[in-house]
Amino acid sequence: MAEENTIFIGKKATMNYVLAVVSQFNGGCNDVCIKARGRAISRAVDVSEIVRNRFIRDAAYKDVKIETEVLPGQNGTDANVSSIEIYLAR
Amino acid sequence: MAEENTIFIGKKATMNYVLAVVSQFNGGCNDVCIKARGRAISRAVDVSEIVRNRFIRDAAYKDVKIETEVLPGQNGTDANVSSIEIYLAR
Repeated sequence: MAEENTIFIGKKATMNYVLAVVSQFNGGCNDVCIKARGRAISRAVDVSEIVRNRFIRDAAYKDVKIETEVLPGQNGTDANVSSIEIYLAR
Repeated sequence: MAEENTIFIGKKATMNYVLAVVSQFNGGCNDVCIKARGRAISRAVDVSEIVRNRFIRDAAYKDVKIETEVLPGQNGTDANVSSIEIYLAR
């Protein structure tokens, strides 16, 4: 999947990301990946459910991947952060 | 899957739930379901990654389900809450 089909979920309001995903679908993409790390994971799940239930009703989950990313932390210690990739397709 | 194989993630410390999942596996279960709603979803992902990376290294994701649950809210309005079910198996 091309990088431009990926929406990274951060700390903005949920509907900002919903709009971004819906725009991808309406722009002709049939596959969108929603990515998030740490506490933004809950928001990523909210975004994909809102897209599916309210906007792109024929979108379905193609795959959900859960991983751990190692981020270089402060004072030399590494931090393990969980991440999720939600693949929506229609 | 039997109900007793399901761990519900709430607001306790992450390691409490990790211990609960590991106990299920060590008690002879080969399938464990980790369930969470709303903001606890991020914690559920953390729990399953810690179990997989540190304790039950042969456990793998069998399925990840994302849904919306309708909860009766205060003053008669319903609230939509996202939920996740993570199926770990070895």
